[in-house]
Amino acid sequence: MSGNKAVAYKGPGKVEVIDTDYPTFELKDGPGVNPANIGRKLSHGVILKTVTTNICGSDQHMVRGRTTAPADLVLGHEITGEVVEVGSDVEFIKVGDICSVPFNIACGRCRNCKERKTGICLNVNPARPGAAYGYVDMGGWVGGQAEYVLVPYADWNLLKFPDRDQALEKILDLTMLSDIFPTGFHGAVTAGVGVGSTVYIAGAGPVGLAAAVSAQLLGAAVVIVGDLNEGRLTQARSFGCETVDVSKGDPRDQIEQLLGVPEVDCGVDAVGFEARGHGSGSSTEAPATVLNSLMDVTAAGGALGIPGLYVTGDPGGIDEAAKVGSLSISLGTGWAKSLSFTTGQCPVMRYNRGLMMAILHDKVSIAKAVNAKAIGLEDAPRGYEEFDAGAATKYVLDPHGYVAA
Amino acid sequence: MSGNKAVAYKGPGKVEVIDTDYPTFELKDGPGVNPANIGRKLSHGVILKTVTTNICGSDQHMVRGRTTAPADLVLGHEITGEVVEVGSDVEFIKVGDICSVPFNIACGRCRNCKERKTGICLNVNPARPGAAYGYVDMGGWVGGQAEYVLVPYADWNLLKFPDRDQALEKILDLTMLSDIFPTGFHGAVTAGVGVGSTVYIAGAGPVGLAAAVSAQLLGAAVVIVGDLNEGRLTQARSFGCETVDVSKGDPRDQIEQLLGVPEVDCGVDAVGFEARGHGSGSSTEAPATVLNSLMDVTAAGGALGIPGLYVTGDPGGIDEAAKVGSLSISLGTGWAKSLSFTTGQCPVMRYNRGLMMAILHDKVSIAKAVNAKAIGLEDAPRGYEEFDAGAATKYVLDPHGYVAA
Amino acid sequence: MSGNKAVAYKGPGKVEVIDTDYPTFELKDGPGVNPANIGRKLSHGVILKTVTTNICGSDQHMVRGRTTAPADLVLGHEITGEVVEVGSDVEFIKVGDICSVPFNIACGRCRNCKERKTGICLNVNPARPGAAYGYVDMGGWVGGQAEYVLVPYADWNLLKFPDRDQALEKILDLTMLSDIFPTGFHGAVTAGVGVGSTVYIAGAGPVGLAAAVSAQLLGAAVVIVGDLNEGRLTQARSFGCETVDVSKGDPRDQIEQLLGVPEVDCGVDAVGFEARGHGSGSSTEAPATVLNSLMDVTAAGGALGIPGLYVTGDPGGIDEAAKVGSLSISLGTGWAKSLSFTTGQCPVMRYNRGLMMAILHDKVSIAKAVNAKAIGLEDAPRGYEEFDAGAATKYVLDPHGYVAA
Amino acid sequence: MSGNKAVAYKGPGKVEVIDTDYPTFELKDGPGVNPANIGRKLSHGVILKTVTTNICGSDQHMVRGRTTAPADLVLGHEITGEVVEVGSDVEFIKVGDICSVPFNIACGRCRNCKERKTGICLNVNPARPGAAYGYVDMGGWVGGQAEYVLVPYADWNLLKFPDRDQALEKILDLTMLSDIFPTGFHGAVTAGVGVGSTVYIAGAGPVGLAAAVSAQLLGAAVVIVGDLNEGRLTQARSFGCETVDVSKGDPRDQIEQLLGVPEVDCGVDAVGFEARGHGSGSSTEAPATVLNSLMDVTAAGGALGIPGLYVTGDPGGIDEAAKVGSLSISLGTGWAKSLSFTTGQCPVMRYNRGLMMAILHDKVSIAKAVNAKAIGLEDAPRGYEEFDAGAATKYVLDPHGYVAA
Repeated sequence: MSGNKAVAYKGPGKVEVIDTDYPTFELKDGPGVNPANIGRKLSHGVILKTVTTNICGSDQHMVRGRTTAPADLVLGHEITGEVVEVGSDVEFIKVGDICSVPFNIACGRCRNCKERKTGICLNVNPARPGAAYGYVDMGGWVGGQAEYVLVPYADWNLLKFPDRDQALEKILDLTMLSDIFPTGFHGAVTAGVGVGSTVYIAGAGPVGLAAAVSAQLLGAAVVIVGDLNEGRLTQARSFGCETVDVSKGDPRDQIEQLLGVPEVDCGVDAVGFEARGHGSGSSTEAPATVLNSLMDVTAAGGALGIPGLYVTGDPGGIDEAAKVGSLSISLGTGWAKSLSFTTGQCPVMRYNRGLMMAILHDKVSIAKAVNAKAIGLEDAPRGYEEFDAGAATKYVLDPHGYVAA
Repeated sequence: MSGNKAVAYKGPGKVEVIDTDYPTFELKDGPGVNPANIGRKLSHGVILKTVTTNICGSDQHMVRGRTTAPADLVLGHEITGEVVEVGSDVEFIKVGDICSVPFNIACGRCRNCKERKTGICLNVNPARPGAAYGYVDMGGWVGGQAEYVLVPYADWNLLKFPDRDQALEKILDLTMLSDIFPTGFHGAVTAGVGVGSTVYIAGAGPVGLAAAVSAQLLGAAVVIVGDLNEGRLTQARSFGCETVDVSKGDPRDQIEQLLGVPEVDCGVDAVGFEARGHGSGSSTEAPATVLNSLMDVTAAGGALGIPGLYVTGDPGGIDEAAKVGSLSISLGTGWAKSLSFTTGQCPVMRYNRGLMMAILHDKVSIAKAVNAKAIGLEDAPRGYEEFDAGAATKYVLDPHGYVAA
Repeated sequence: MSGNKAVAYKGPGKVEVIDTDYPTFELKDGPGVNPANIGRKLSHGVILKTVTTNICGSDQHMVRGRTTAPADLVLGHEITGEVVEVGSDVEFIKVGDICSVPFNIACGRCRNCKERKTGICLNVNPARPGAAYGYVDMGGWVGGQAEYVLVPYADWNLLKFPDRDQALEKILDLTMLSDIFPTGFHGAVTAGVGVGSTVYIAGAGPVGLAAAVSAQLLGAAVVIVGDLNEGRLTQARSFGCETVDVSKGDPRDQIEQLLGVPEVDCGVDAVGFEARGHGSGSSTEAPATVLNSLMDVTAAGGALGIPGLYVTGDPGGIDEAAKVGSLSISLGTGWAKSLSFTTGQCPVMRYNRGLMMAILHDKVSIAKAVNAKAIGLEDAPRGYEEFDAGAATKYVLDPHGYVAA
Repeated sequence: MSGNKAVAYKGPGKVEVIDTDYPTFELKDGPGVNPANIGRKLSHGVILKTVTTNICGSDQHMVRGRTTAPADLVLGHEITGEVVEVGSDVEFIKVGDICSVPFNIACGRCRNCKERKTGICLNVNPARPGAAYGYVDMGGWVGGQAEYVLVPYADWNLLKFPDRDQALEKILDLTMLSDIFPTGFHGAVTAGVGVGSTVYIAGAGPVGLAAAVSAQLLGAAVVIVGDLNEGRLTQARSFGCETVDVSKGDPRDQIEQLLGVPEVDCGVDAVGFEARGHGSGSSTEAPATVLNSLMDVTAAGGALGIPGLYVTGDPGGIDEAAKVGSLSISLGTGWAKSLSFTTGQCPVMRYNRGLMMAILHDKVSIAKAVNAKAIGLEDAPRGYEEFDAGAATKYVLDPHGYVAA
């Protein structure tokens, strides 16, 4: 158990599987670790043998070189694992438990955690509220695209699956509980989706598809997904969504053809700052396009859920404004319609237990909806590449062959 | 158009189809009309040609002689109709519209209506907040189990279906929007049902089945329905519910067999004051049984939705306490678990539009779940009889042959 | 009763008291009336003899020539009046009632009204959801800075005061119920203000001060108001607020001096699109300054209430972007903090009854907080001028001497 | 530091100050300790030097002999203390911190804690969800009416005051944060109290008075408190409440005299199962009186907050039904009004931080409202006696002279 293979960022466009250290109950110095976190004792943590760990769209921001992530950063914040060691202060999680790990690390002891705002925990990232595994500027917690990973504050953070066999049988669904399923669900919930709603989701990547599944689970009457990638739109149609091809013109017109009215009750932004233009402008980045379009197509009194990431600085941005994270937003459009907007990381712990129950009782097929595909840890570089090229696939790394079995 | 056949209560155990007056834009004196309502001008109303009108379990309380309903009261508060005349103050509803009528009559102008509490409108019943069509002590508004019926405050009360042909095609589903579907949904919502919940619904009559469908629509992981009528339990299983036969012992044990734990997250009382005992006591009325049982099987932190009717006086009650509506409730059980309880009529307008959208977009099959069966107006007496005998059927009267067509 | 003196917009910087027509139960053609509204029958309306009618900051946008308001538009959407005539469809409001008029006109019969979203009623403005009295592009309903005014859908819209004498005694407080008190309250509520909150309110005009009073009423621990007008800041301090002079540097630093931390729980934008820069830039319009500053000073997990008006077009805007209502917003700052944002007109009816009760039972002194000052109708031009010059005063027009009495 | 004086229950009507053990980081066997809790390791705990610890009305249930509390049980669940030792797993609480202890013990690691339902934590009481210090059947955690006390899961449970000197200066207010202030506040919140509400609170003991203060803080227009103890009613009037003397007849009539209508918007039951009758029956226990009365005086659409304790068994109950916790409730009255009911222990952590802020910023004077009076630990028996006799006083024990200083 002395080694630990892991997927690391090596530079723009490049990830590699490297040999790294087996986790310990202390946060040691390493690429991207916040100095104030170095040496932190983690007797409240457990070490997981990774069952599955997924490649996420937000990893791509780093891999594309759009961030200040350092070389050799171990990636991966979508983790499901089997507990193999428990720290001395862990009371309720046991060796052998199969657990889902919320991507946002939370202490369970600060004001925000007590208020269920685990996406902005005050005690895990010296730089700002909120932390994550394997992510730039998120505290320096080691990523989970690896054979083994340490999860701190394990009694608080981990969601234990009730039955090991059942869990492994549904593992491709359950692996989505660490991030994209709750993230998409949060987008739908904060967009106000309820029974009978009409919904427009911008973006048919895994988060967009997860938002679409979530909207269906919440009882939406019609779920429309917009993208400019035909493969992803086909994927959206495969489980009952309507689609809009934003490369073919204004979403408003296409929505009107579907619904008879050009507006929906609820809008979800599952794209974020790397948005591209609509219609003939779709080959160029246009960071505010999605938000402005969503204000246009969401009816007065509606809400926008914004799980798509917006950043405070984007050195690779298309212009000076984009580089400092400034977007040109037609706020008056939203104001005239009394819209509300919810941004930020999904607080996974608010939703993962309920979504787990829905999976275990066959009420939802998230793996199928996002087209989950398990590959070996050593195939991670190929997975990153294909995903970046627009494959309508959610790549699930399977370091120990749990899925293959 | 001078006549109007209608279903009237004639005395305990007896309903008849009678000839009565065609509606006018004034509330005239008649059986059960509150004196202060006599002569009320209704220029805000419309006259509907009844498309469908359902027999409701709460009608049975009257028909069984458990209330002070006067003879010749025209029954019926579950109404869907086509507008044939509009009052002079009606602005947005038009002749030819096919509309659903919420069973609770509301003015749209009082404090409670402004707060969406249309089940307790302050202006429609001189005796107390809240009114309904064709119901004892509910203001004296003429019932809708008739060929024609007047609906007051039509712009406020009516839910217009967007398309006539589509509406008639799905009429057996849409007819449930006037009462039982929203009522069951309200039960589920106030029981706190959400994605991943486990739910126990006491009672497999139409409201219980509607609550079960609603819980599924809200994303519940497991929906369990309890009753002692095997036909109704079979009906519940037909659309994916688990069931508990309360004549065979304690629901708690049967729930444990289904879930592995003896408690659910959410409880719904779809029975009300005419409850019978559980286990070997199931042949006797035991008005507090359902509530006490629900407190027992609902987990700490849960909630109880109570759409089942409880009355302030029940002359036919099993003992002196029951006769004055007093129930022997183990409140300490609920208190120790921090349960909450929501009672009362469903404010239909809060839910009917969203549920209509779910029906129109094929997200739910309420007619199938409650086993809707259309019969002629003249067959109403038989419908009442069979329903009272425990048929697992929701009887829909079809006075003009819209459904048959 | 054949005449009706009223305050009219005559052109940029100019208002005049003119003679205009006494209201009728029909919406007649006139300056700014939407063609589709001309000839609309208003038997659901009442005619009010104006008790008080206030000058509002949003009137100033028109008077400054920042909109397309036509000459001779009768101004005024903050109205309190005595009913002198009732339409034939009015059932519960009576001649002699003293009532507050919500500035947003609502039908009480559309989906949005039924959902309490009266600020975006679907039936009163052919151009878009939402209407108001005496306001450009808001349907063409005649303004209430006049001796008499018609209020449509009176049973729905009007809030009747329970006692005439009590109402007239507290009229300077009650007159704020038509707009700024609920509007400020909505700002505080949507900013998440609750017991113990720390709050920063950008803008010490009447809406900002009303938001500050509201935050106190909601139990806030500390209320900080920022502005660059010393008179208005003094007014804020007069009822217990802390203040920040934004002309003297970054609000963040000043907040830190007050609270020990540089952030508050809740932020309210009571300024809107005519914002000016902070610090040394405070002499120039900088439309996104307030929003960007609020995202900066609101702690992670907080919310922003945005009652301040943002427009879709501003011909007098400082640059091309401003002219089309486009703002340069650092959304990443808000996203990293998981902030939420609520925009739009306050739905007055959601709040006015509760606020009336608080006034009538002496729980709040809104008139004193906003420094209400009654002047004659003929003094309106002077009121507009002084208010525009930054007077820390809320001008209340008193056309018939009710206040003076 | 080897000894620890503490207040112990010695038998019906009798409490004594005894010598007991200084706390350790293990839950040792002792009076009332649940066998499954014996030997539990508490490295997540801290030892507090008690600053203040209050006598609570719910302690009186035990002292009156109405429970199965064993002799020598150390009493006390309302604790404020200074940290003198921290366990090895405590990360954020430090020696020297002055902290408030929520009376409900919670692990911060179970489903319910994660959902903010800390009153029904699943991991602290082997017998049922929920635990408390020094209380029968609540897990066996040693009470805090002592010089020193151990608080488990300290990072989660403790509310640290920001400044030591400020805390000690306001200690008579802050000591109410451990129970009665949040408990009263929870009663008001779950009764739906908001700005402008009219409120009736049954019971003018400390919890009732705290509910009254809370209702005021939440913006209530009128707060009416009912009791039959004139001293307590006088206390209620001292801070602006209206009062009803329930020994003088039906509360409904007295409310009508105060408000002009016989009903309020919101009802709070701050009495519980030891209720006495109203009017001439006020000398006899009548366990359901308060609830039935509250349903009678709360308007349709209202809510009842029920912080008053109801038990599952009461060996000293007035009749057989009372002995098994069965109450004769007129549920039909509540059902006809669509009332909702919230029962159970207050989840203190949901409210204590905000209430602390309100105290620290002088927005509320809870100590004055409940007439807090500090006495020495050795005077506890006298405090219990006077309180039981109906003194309008909240007794605060001051074992180390922090308050006296």
